[in-house]
Amino acid sequence: MTYCVGIMLDAGLILASDSRTHAEVDNFACFCKMSVFERPGERVVVLLSSGNLAGTQAVISLLKQRGARDGGSSLWRAESMFDTAMLVSDAMRDVDRRDGQHLADGDVGFNASFILGGQIKGEPPRLFRIYAQGNFIEASLETPYIQTGGTKYGKPIIDRVITRSTSLSDAAKCALVSFDSTMRSNLSVGMPIDLLCYERDSLKVRMQRRFEIGDAYFSALGTQWSEGTRQVFRTLPNLDW
Amino acid sequence: MTYCVGIMLDAGLILASDSRTHAEVDNFACFCKMSVFERPGERVVVLLSSGNLAGTQAVISLLKQRGARDGGSSLWRAESMFDTAMLVSDAMRDVDRRDGQHLADGDVGFNASFILGGQIKGEPPRLFRIYAQGNFIEASLETPYIQTGGTKYGKPIIDRVITRSTSLSDAAKCALVSFDSTMRSNLSVGMPIDLLCYERDSLKVRMQRRFEIGDAYFSALGTQWSEGTRQVFRTLPNLDW
Repeated sequence: MTYCVGIMLDAGLILASDSRTHAEVDNFACFCKMSVFERPGERVVVLLSSGNLAGTQAVISLLKQRGARDGGSSLWRAESMFDTAMLVSDAMRDVDRRDGQHLADGDVGFNASFILGGQIKGEPPRLFRIYAQGNFIEASLETPYIQTGGTKYGKPIIDRVITRSTSLSDAAKCALVSFDSTMRSNLSVGMPIDLLCYERDSLKVRMQRRFEIGDAYFSALGTQWSEGTRQVFRTLPNLDW
Repeated sequence: MTYCVGIMLDAGLILASDSRTHAEVDNFACFCKMSVFERPGERVVVLLSSGNLAGTQAVISLLKQRGARDGGSSLWRAESMFDTAMLVSDAMRDVDRRDGQHLADGDVGFNASFILGGQIKGEPPRLFRIYAQGNFIEASLETPYIQTGGTKYGKPIIDRVITRSTSLSDAAKCALVSFDSTMRSNLSVGMPIDLLCYERDSLKVRMQRRFEIGDAYFSALGTQWSEGTRQVFRTLPNLDW
Protein backbone atom coordinates (compact mmCIF):
# COMPACT_ATOMS: atom_id res chain seq x y z
CA MET A 1 0.00 0.00 0.00
CA THR A 2 0.96 3.66 0.18
CA TYR A 3 -0.50 6.83 1.54
CA CYS A 4 -0.15 10.10 -0.37
CA VAL A 5 -2.08 13.31 0.05
CA GLY A 6 -2.15 16.63 -1.78
CA ILE A 7 -4.00 19.66 -0.40
CA MET A 8 -4.79 22.79 -2.44
CA LEU A 9 -5.17 25.99 -0.43
CA ASP A 10 -5.57 29.65 -1.26
CA ALA A 11 -2.09 30.02 0.24
CA GLY A 12 -0.47 27.20 -1.76
CA LEU A 13 -0.04 23.44 -1.71
CA ILE A 14 0.75 20.72 0.80
CA LEU A 15 2.10 17.44 -0.58
CA ALA A 16 3.04 14.43 1.52
CA SER A 17 3.90 10.77 0.96
CA ASP A 18 4.92 7.78 3.02
CA SER A 19 7.86 5.53 2.04
CA ARG A 20 6.69 1.97 2.48
CA THR A 21 6.53 -0.48 -0.39
CA HIS A 22 5.67 -4.12 0.01
CA ALA A 23 4.94 -7.23 -1.99
CA GLU A 24 3.70 -9.42 0.84
CA VAL A 25 3.79 -8.56 4.54
CA ASP A 26 7.11 -10.39 4.79
CA ASN A 27 8.64 -8.33 1.99
CA PHE A 28 8.61 -4.60 2.60
CA ALA A 29 11.07 -1.85 1.88
CA CYS A 30 11.57 1.90 1.93
CA PHE A 31 11.44 4.10 -1.20
CA CYS A 32 10.84 7.82 -1.50
CA LYS A 33 7.59 8.43 -3.40
CA MET A 34 8.02 12.18 -3.84
CA SER A 35 9.72 13.58 -6.96
CA VAL A 36 10.37 17.32 -7.31
CA PHE A 37 11.05 19.15 -10.58
CA GLU A 38 12.03 22.71 -9.75
CA ARG A 39 13.35 25.69 -11.73
CA PRO A 40 13.20 28.62 -9.28
CA GLY A 41 11.23 31.58 -10.58
CA GLU A 42 9.69 29.46 -13.35
CA ARG A 43 8.12 26.24 -12.09
CA VAL A 44 7.71 23.81 -9.22
CA VAL A 45 6.27 20.41 -10.15
CA VAL A 46 5.81 17.64 -7.57
CA LEU A 47 4.76 14.04 -8.21
CA LEU A 48 3.64 11.59 -5.51
CA SER A 49 3.66 7.95 -6.63
CA SER A 50 1.27 5.15 -5.70
CA GLY A 51 1.05 1.59 -6.94
CA ASN A 52 3.43 -0.90 -8.51
CA LEU A 53 6.96 0.39 -7.84
CA ALA A 54 8.46 -0.81 -11.12
CA GLY A 55 5.75 1.14 -12.94
CA THR A 56 6.05 4.39 -10.97
CA GLN A 57 9.85 4.34 -11.13
CA ALA A 58 9.75 3.77 -14.90
CA VAL A 59 7.41 6.74 -15.34
CA ILE A 60 9.59 9.03 -13.22
CA SER A 61 12.75 7.88 -15.05
CA LEU A 62 11.12 8.53 -18.43
CA LEU A 63 10.04 12.01 -17.31
CA LYS A 64 13.54 12.81 -16.06
CA GLN A 65 15.20 11.45 -19.20
CA ARG A 66 12.83 13.33 -21.49
CA GLY A 67 13.37 16.43 -19.37
CA ALA A 68 17.15 16.13 -19.70
CA ARG A 69 16.83 15.87 -23.51
CA ASP A 70 14.63 18.97 -23.31
CA GLY A 71 12.57 18.07 -26.37
CA GLY A 72 8.86 18.64 -26.98
CA SER A 73 7.91 16.09 -24.32
CA SER A 74 10.00 17.76 -21.61
CA LEU A 75 8.39 18.69 -18.29
CA TRP A 76 10.54 21.84 -18.39
CA ARG A 77 8.77 23.11 -21.49
CA ALA A 78 5.15 22.48 -20.47
CA GLU A 79 3.28 25.79 -20.43
CA SER A 80 0.69 24.73 -17.87
CA MET A 81 0.12 22.15 -15.16
CA PHE A 82 -2.58 20.68 -17.41
CA ASP A 83 0.05 20.09 -20.10
CA THR A 84 2.34 18.64 -17.42
CA ALA A 85 -0.39 16.19 -16.41
CA MET A 86 -0.67 15.19 -20.08
CA LEU A 87 3.09 14.49 -20.22
CA VAL A 88 2.90 12.32 -17.10
CA SER A 89 -0.08 10.53 -18.62
CA ASP A 90 1.84 9.98 -21.89
CA ALA A 91 4.79 8.51 -19.99
CA MET A 92 2.44 6.20 -18.06
CA ARG A 93 0.88 4.96 -21.29
CA ASP A 94 4.32 4.40 -22.82
CA VAL A 95 5.31 2.24 -19.85
CA ASP A 96 1.99 0.41 -19.99
CA ARG A 97 2.44 -0.23 -23.74
CA ARG A 98 5.80 -1.81 -23.04
CA ASP A 99 4.95 -3.75 -19.84
CA GLY A 100 1.17 -4.11 -19.77
CA GLN A 101 0.77 -7.41 -21.61
CA HIS A 102 3.68 -8.99 -19.74
CA LEU A 103 2.17 -7.97 -16.42
CA ALA A 104 -1.26 -9.21 -17.48
CA ASP A 105 0.33 -12.57 -18.45
CA GLY A 106 1.59 -12.79 -14.86
CA ASP A 107 -1.84 -11.74 -13.54
CA VAL A 108 -0.50 -8.36 -12.40
CA GLY A 109 -1.92 -4.98 -13.44
CA PHE A 110 -0.14 -1.73 -14.34
CA ASN A 111 -1.59 0.15 -11.41
CA ALA A 112 0.75 3.17 -11.13
CA SER A 113 -1.05 6.38 -10.26
CA PHE A 114 0.09 9.85 -9.27
CA ILE A 115 -0.80 12.99 -7.41
CA LEU A 116 0.60 15.96 -9.37
CA GLY A 117 0.82 19.40 -7.80
CA GLY A 118 2.69 22.58 -8.48
CA GLN A 119 2.74 25.91 -10.23
CA ILE A 120 4.07 27.18 -13.54
CA LYS A 121 4.65 30.91 -13.96
CA GLY A 122 1.60 32.56 -15.49
CA GLU A 123 -1.04 30.40 -13.83
CA PRO A 124 -2.12 29.64 -10.26
CA PRO A 125 -1.02 26.49 -8.42
CA ARG A 126 -2.94 23.37 -9.50
CA LEU A 127 -3.41 19.87 -8.13
CA PHE A 128 -4.29 16.72 -10.09
CA ARG A 129 -4.88 13.03 -9.54
CA ILE A 130 -3.72 10.92 -12.48
CA TYR A 131 -5.32 7.47 -12.62
CA ALA A 132 -3.54 4.30 -13.76
CA GLN A 133 -5.28 4.62 -17.14
CA GLY A 134 -3.67 8.04 -17.64
CA ASN A 135 -6.87 10.08 -17.36
CA PHE A 136 -6.95 12.62 -14.57
CA ILE A 137 -9.05 14.89 -12.34
CA GLU A 138 -8.22 18.26 -10.82
CA ALA A 139 -8.92 19.36 -7.23
CA SER A 140 -11.77 21.85 -6.91
CA LEU A 141 -12.99 24.58 -4.60
CA GLU A 142 -15.42 22.10 -3.02
CA THR A 143 -12.96 19.21 -2.72
CA PRO A 144 -9.55 20.78 -2.26
CA TYR A 145 -7.59 17.63 -1.48
CA ILE A 146 -6.63 14.39 -3.17
CA GLN A 147 -5.55 11.14 -1.53
CA THR A 148 -4.18 7.90 -2.96
CA GLY A 149 -3.41 4.51 -1.41
CA GLY A 150 -4.66 3.68 2.08
CA THR A 151 -6.82 6.76 2.26
CA LYS A 152 -9.60 5.96 4.70
CA TYR A 153 -8.14 6.15 8.20
CA GLY A 154 -6.59 9.54 7.47
CA LYS A 155 -9.62 11.10 5.78
CA PRO A 156 -11.88 12.12 8.71
CA ILE A 157 -9.34 14.55 10.12
CA ILE A 158 -8.84 16.19 6.72
CA ASP A 159 -12.61 16.41 6.20
CA ARG A 160 -13.00 18.12 9.56
CA VAL A 161 -10.15 20.60 9.28
CA ILE A 162 -9.32 21.52 5.70
CA THR A 163 -10.94 24.30 3.71
CA ARG A 164 -9.36 26.39 0.97
CA SER A 165 -8.67 29.15 3.51
CA THR A 166 -6.75 26.91 5.95
CA SER A 167 -3.20 28.21 6.43
CA LEU A 168 -0.21 26.31 5.04
CA SER A 169 1.04 25.78 8.58
CA ASP A 170 -2.24 24.25 9.78
CA ALA A 171 -2.65 22.14 6.66
CA ALA A 172 0.88 20.75 7.08
CA LYS A 173 0.00 19.75 10.64
CA CYS A 174 -3.27 18.26 9.46
CA ALA A 175 -1.47 16.17 6.84
CA LEU A 176 0.92 14.86 9.50
CA VAL A 177 -1.93 13.98 11.88
CA SER A 178 -3.63 12.25 8.95
CA PHE A 179 -0.48 10.14 8.46
CA ASP A 180 -0.33 9.42 12.18
CA SER A 181 -3.95 8.17 12.13
CA THR A 182 -3.26 6.07 9.05
CA MET A 183 -0.11 4.46 10.40
CA ARG A 184 -1.80 3.54 13.69
CA SER A 185 -4.30 1.41 11.77
CA ASN A 186 -2.56 0.38 8.53
CA LEU A 187 0.74 -1.51 8.66
CA SER A 188 1.31 -1.07 4.93
CA VAL A 189 1.91 2.69 5.37
CA GLY A 190 5.21 3.57 7.04
CA MET A 191 7.82 6.20 7.92
CA PRO A 192 9.70 8.16 6.79
CA ILE A 193 7.18 10.73 5.62
CA ASP A 194 8.14 13.31 3.00
CA LEU A 195 6.38 16.65 3.38
CA LEU A 196 6.53 19.59 1.01
CA CYS A 197 4.84 22.90 1.60
CA TYR A 198 4.61 25.16 -1.46
CA GLU A 199 3.81 28.83 -0.98
CA ARG A 200 1.64 30.25 -3.77
CA ASP A 201 3.53 32.37 -6.34
CA SER A 202 6.90 31.67 -4.70
CA LEU A 203 7.89 29.44 -7.66
CA LYS A 204 10.48 27.91 -5.34
CA VAL A 205 10.52 25.07 -2.79
CA ARG A 206 11.33 26.70 0.52
CA MET A 207 9.85 24.13 2.88
CA GLN A 208 10.53 20.44 2.43
CA ARG A 209 11.22 18.00 5.19
CA ARG A 210 11.59 14.30 5.81
CA PHE A 211 10.24 12.83 9.05
CA GLU A 212 12.22 9.74 10.05
CA ILE A 213 11.09 7.17 12.62
CA GLY A 214 11.34 8.77 16.05
CA ASP A 215 11.25 12.35 14.72
CA ALA A 216 10.76 14.53 17.79
CA TYR A 217 8.26 16.91 16.19
CA PHE A 218 6.17 14.16 14.61
CA SER A 219 6.11 12.15 17.86
CA ALA A 220 5.09 15.22 19.87
CA LEU A 221 2.37 16.04 17.36
CA GLY A 222 0.92 12.52 17.63
CA THR A 223 1.02 12.59 21.42
CA GLN A 224 -0.49 16.05 21.73
CA TRP A 225 -3.18 15.21 19.21
CA SER A 226 -4.12 12.04 21.11
CA GLU A 227 -4.16 13.86 24.43
CA GLY A 228 -6.04 16.79 22.94
CA THR A 229 -8.75 14.65 21.38
CA ARG A 230 -9.16 12.72 24.64
CA GLN A 231 -9.53 16.06 26.40
CA VAL A 232 -12.23 17.08 23.89
CA PHE A 233 -14.02 13.84 24.81
CA ARG A 234 -14.05 14.74 28.44
CA THR A 235 -15.85 17.98 27.57
CA LEU A 236 -18.51 16.39 25.34
CA PRO A 237 -22.00 16.44 26.88
CA ASN A 238 -23.15 13.20 28.50
CA LEU A 239 -25.96 11.31 26.88
CA ASP A 240 -29.23 11.49 28.76
CA TRP A 241 -30.85 8.05 28.39
CA MET B 1 -22.72 -1.29 3.36
CA THR B 2 -23.34 -1.11 7.09
CA TYR B 3 -21.48 0.06 10.13
CA CYS B 4 -21.72 -1.86 13.40
CA VAL B 5 -19.49 -1.69 16.44
CA GLY B 6 -19.31 -3.56 19.73
CA ILE B 7 -17.09 -2.41 22.61
CA MET B 8 -16.23 -4.56 25.62
CA LEU B 9 -15.38 -2.64 28.79
CA ASP B 10 -14.75 -3.55 32.40
CA ALA B 11 -18.03 -1.75 33.07
CA GLY B 12 -20.07 -3.52 30.40
CA LEU B 13 -20.81 -3.40 26.69
CA ILE B 14 -21.60 -0.78 24.06
CA LEU B 15 -23.34 -1.97 20.91
CA ALA B 16 -24.31 0.26 18.01
CA SER B 17 -25.54 -0.16 14.44
CA ASP B 18 -26.63 2.03 11.56
CA SER B 19 -29.82 1.36 9.58
CA ARG B 20 -28.95 1.75 5.94
CA THR B 21 -29.25 -1.08 3.46
CA HIS B 22 -28.67 -0.71 -0.23
CA ALA B 23 -28.43 -2.73 -3.41
CA GLU B 24 -27.11 0.02 -5.67
CA VAL B 25 -26.77 3.70 -4.79
CA ASP B 26 -30.21 4.27 -6.32
CA ASN B 27 -31.81 1.59 -4.16
CA PHE B 28 -31.39 2.16 -0.46
CA ALA B 29 -33.66 1.63 2.50
CA CYS B 30 -33.83 1.67 6.28
CA PHE B 31 -33.81 -1.50 8.41
CA CYS B 32 -32.92 -1.91 12.07
CA LYS B 33 -29.83 -4.11 12.40
CA MET B 34 -29.98 -4.58 16.17
CA SER B 35 -31.85 -7.53 17.67
CA VAL B 36 -32.20 -7.87 21.45
CA PHE B 37 -33.05 -11.08 23.31
CA GLU B 38 -33.63 -10.23 26.96
CA ARG B 39 -34.90 -12.10 30.00
CA PRO B 40 -34.25 -9.73 32.94
CA GLY B 41 -32.16 -11.24 35.71
CA GLU B 42 -31.09 -14.14 33.44
CA ARG B 43 -29.68 -13.00 30.09
CA VAL B 44 -29.20 -10.12 27.68
CA VAL B 45 -28.16 -11.14 24.15
CA VAL B 46 -27.70 -8.57 21.38
CA LEU B 47 -27.02 -9.26 17.70
CA LEU B 48 -25.85 -6.65 15.18
CA SER B 49 -26.29 -7.69 11.54
CA SER B 50 -24.05 -6.96 8.56
CA GLY B 51 -24.27 -8.15 4.98
CA ASN B 52 -26.99 -9.46 2.71
CA LEU B 53 -30.33 -8.48 4.31
CA ALA B 54 -32.23 -11.60 3.21
CA GLY B 55 -29.53 -13.68 4.89
CA THR B 56 -29.37 -11.74 8.18
CA GLN B 57 -33.17 -11.53 8.45
CA ALA B 58 -33.49 -15.29 7.86
CA VAL B 59 -30.95 -15.99 10.60
CA ILE B 60 -32.73 -13.71 13.09
CA SER B 61 -36.12 -15.21 12.20
CA LEU B 62 -34.79 -18.74 12.69
CA LEU B 63 -33.32 -17.78 16.07
CA LYS B 64 -36.61 -16.20 17.17
CA GLN B 65 -38.66 -19.16 15.95
CA ARG B 66 -36.38 -21.70 17.60
CA GLY B 67 -36.44 -19.55 20.75
CA ALA B 68 -40.23 -19.53 20.77
CA ARG B 69 -40.33 -23.33 20.45
CA ASP B 70 -37.87 -23.41 23.36
CA GLY B 71 -36.21 -26.67 22.26
CA GLY B 72 -32.54 -27.63 22.50
CA SER B 73 -31.53 -25.03 19.92
CA SER B 74 -33.21 -22.13 21.75
CA LEU B 75 -31.22 -19.02 22.58
CA TRP B 76 -33.07 -18.93 25.88
CA ARG B 77 -31.53 -22.23 26.98
CA ALA B 78 -27.88 -21.55 26.05
CA GLU B 79 -25.75 -21.73 29.18
CA SER B 80 -23.01 -19.43 27.92
CA MET B 81 -22.39 -16.72 25.32
CA PHE B 82 -20.06 -19.20 23.61
CA ASP B 83 -22.98 -21.64 23.23
CA THR B 84 -25.12 -18.72 22.00
CA ALA B 85 -22.52 -17.95 19.34
CA MET B 86 -22.69 -21.62 18.29
CA LEU B 87 -26.49 -21.37 17.93
CA VAL B 88 -26.17 -18.26 15.76
CA SER B 89 -23.52 -20.03 13.71
CA ASP B 90 -25.80 -23.09 13.32
CA ALA B 91 -28.66 -20.89 12.11
CA MET B 92 -26.33 -19.17 9.62
CA ARG B 93 -25.22 -22.53 8.24
CA ASP B 94 -28.82 -23.72 7.96
CA VAL B 95 -29.68 -20.62 5.92
CA ASP B 96 -26.56 -21.07 3.82
CA ARG B 97 -27.43 -24.73 3.19
CA ARG B 98 -30.83 -23.69 1.89
CA ASP B 99 -29.82 -20.57 -0.09
CA GLY B 100 -26.09 -20.87 -0.75
CA GLN B 101 -26.15 -22.68 -4.09
CA HIS B 102 -28.99 -20.52 -5.42
CA LEU B 103 -27.08 -17.38 -4.51
CA ALA B 104 -23.88 -18.75 -6.05
CA ASP B 105 -25.83 -19.51 -9.25
CA GLY B 106 -26.75 -15.81 -9.34
CA ASP B 107 -23.15 -14.84 -8.57
CA VAL B 108 -24.08 -13.63 -5.08
CA GLY B 109 -22.51 -14.87 -1.86
CA PHE B 110 -24.09 -15.62 1.52
CA ASN B 111 -22.22 -12.85 3.30
CA ALA B 112 -24.23 -12.39 6.51
CA SER B 113 -22.09 -11.74 9.55
CA PHE B 114 -22.84 -10.70 13.11
CA ILE B 115 -21.53 -8.98 16.19
CA LEU B 116 -22.84 -10.83 19.23
CA GLY B 117 -22.60 -9.31 22.69
CA GLY B 118 -24.26 -9.86 26.01
CA GLN B 119 -24.20 -11.64 29.32
CA ILE B 120 -25.75 -14.82 30.69
CA LYS B 121 -26.05 -15.26 34.45
CA GLY B 122 -23.02 -17.08 35.81
CA GLU B 123 -20.43 -15.65 33.45
CA PRO B 124 -19.07 -12.18 32.64
CA PRO B 125 -20.25 -10.19 29.59
CA ARG B 126 -18.71 -11.41 26.32
CA LEU B 127 -18.40 -10.04 22.80
CA PHE B 128 -17.98 -12.04 19.56
CA ARG B 129 -17.68 -11.48 15.86
CA ILE B 130 -19.29 -14.27 13.84
CA TYR B 131 -18.02 -14.52 10.25
CA ALA B 132 -20.16 -15.44 7.24
CA GLN B 133 -18.73 -18.98 7.40
CA GLY B 134 -20.07 -19.38 10.93
CA ASN B 135 -16.72 -19.42 12.69
CA PHE B 136 -16.12 -16.67 15.25
CA ILE B 137 -13.65 -14.69 17.33
CA GLU B 138 -14.02 -13.15 20.77
CA ALA B 139 -12.91 -9.66 21.82
CA SER B 140 -9.83 -9.65 24.05
CA LEU B 141 -8.15 -7.50 26.68
CA GLU B 142 -5.80 -6.12 24.01
CA THR B 143 -8.46 -5.55 21.35
CA PRO B 144 -11.65 -4.81 23.22
CA TYR B 145 -13.80 -3.79 20.26
CA ILE B 146 -15.19 -5.34 17.09
CA GLN B 147 -16.38 -3.53 13.97
CA THR B 148 -18.16 -4.79 10.85
CA GLY B 149 -19.07 -3.14 7.54
CA GLY B 150 -17.57 0.26 6.64
CA THR B 151 -15.13 0.18 9.52
CA LYS B 152 -12.22 2.37 8.51
CA TYR B 153 -13.31 5.99 8.84
CA GLY B 154 -14.63 5.35 12.34
CA LYS B 155 -11.66 3.36 13.60
CA PRO B 156 -9.05 6.04 14.46
CA ILE B 157 -11.22 7.65 17.13
CA ILE B 158 -11.90 4.29 18.77
CA ASP B 159 -8.19 3.42 18.66
CA ARG B 160 -7.35 6.70 20.35
CA VAL B 161 -9.98 6.65 23.07
CA ILE B 162 -11.07 3.15 24.03
CA THR B 163 -9.41 0.96 26.65
CA ARG B 164 -11.06 -1.64 28.83
CA SER B 165 -11.26 0.90 31.66
CA THR B 166 -13.12 3.55 29.61
CA SER B 167 -16.49 4.35 31.23
CA LEU B 168 -19.75 3.27 29.57
CA SER B 169 -20.69 6.92 29.18
CA ASP B 170 -17.44 7.84 27.39
CA ALA B 171 -17.52 4.72 25.23
CA ALA B 172 -21.11 5.49 24.15
CA LYS B 173 -19.99 8.97 23.12
CA CYS B 174 -16.98 7.51 21.34
CA ALA B 175 -19.20 5.10 19.39
CA LEU B 176 -21.43 8.00 18.32
CA VAL B 177 -18.45 10.11 17.21
CA SER B 178 -17.19 7.06 15.31
CA PHE B 179 -20.55 6.90 13.49
CA ASP B 180 -20.41 10.64 12.80
CA SER B 181 -16.93 10.26 11.25
CA THR B 182 -18.09 7.28 9.19
CA MET B 183 -21.24 8.95 7.87
CA ARG B 184 -19.33 12.07 6.86
CA SER B 185 -17.21 9.95 4.50
CA ASN B 186 -19.33 6.92 3.60
CA LEU B 187 -22.77 7.40 2.01
CA SER B 188 -23.62 3.72 2.46
CA VAL B 189 -23.86 4.17 6.24
CA GLY B 190 -26.89 6.14 7.42
CA MET B 191 -29.16 7.21 10.28
CA PRO B 192 -30.98 6.24 12.38
CA ILE B 193 -28.37 4.78 14.72
CA ASP B 194 -29.35 2.23 17.35
CA LEU B 195 -27.27 2.39 20.51
CA LEU B 196 -27.40 0.00 23.45
CA CYS B 197 -25.37 0.38 26.60
CA TYR B 198 -25.27 -2.71 28.81
CA GLU B 199 -24.11 -2.38 32.40
CA ARG B 200 -22.12 -5.39 33.61
CA ASP B 201 -24.06 -7.80 35.85
CA SER B 202 -27.29 -5.82 35.46
CA LEU B 203 -28.76 -8.63 33.32
CA LYS B 204 -31.23 -6.06 32.02
CA VAL B 205 -31.25 -3.47 29.20
CA ARG B 206 -31.58 -0.12 30.93
CA MET B 207 -30.11 2.12 28.25
CA GLN B 208 -31.15 1.77 24.64
CA ARG B 209 -31.79 4.64 22.30
CA ARG B 210 -32.41 5.33 18.64
CA PHE B 211 -30.89 8.45 17.09
CA GLU B 212 -33.03 9.69 14.21
CA ILE B 213 -31.88 12.18 11.57
CA GLY B 214 -31.66 15.60 13.22
CA ASP B 215 -31.40 14.19 16.76
CA ALA B 216 -30.43 17.18 18.93
CA TYR B 217 -27.88 15.32 21.05
CA PHE B 218 -26.21 13.58 18.12
CA SER B 219 -26.02 16.83 16.16
CA ALA B 220 -24.55 18.69 19.13
CA LEU B 221 -22.02 15.93 19.68
CA GLY B 222 -20.86 16.11 16.06
CA THR B 223 -20.60 19.90 16.17
CA GLN B 224 -18.77 20.00 19.48
CA TRP B 225 -16.41 17.26 18.38
CA SER B 226 -15.59 19.11 15.16
CA GLU B 227 -15.08 22.39 17.00
CA GLY B 228 -13.08 20.69 19.74
CA THR B 229 -10.74 18.91 17.34
CA ARG B 230 -10.22 22.16 15.42
CA GLN B 231 -9.39 23.81 18.73
CA VAL B 232 -6.84 21.07 19.46
CA PHE B 233 -5.28 21.87 16.09
CA ARG B 234 -4.83 25.47 17.00
CA THR B 235 -2.84 24.40 20.04
CA LEU B 236 -0.54 21.96 18.18
CA PRO B 237 3.04 23.18 17.91
CA ASN B 238 4.00 24.77 14.60
CA LEU B 239 6.48 22.96 12.42
CA ASP B 240 9.89 24.53 12.31
CA TRP B 241 11.13 24.12 8.73
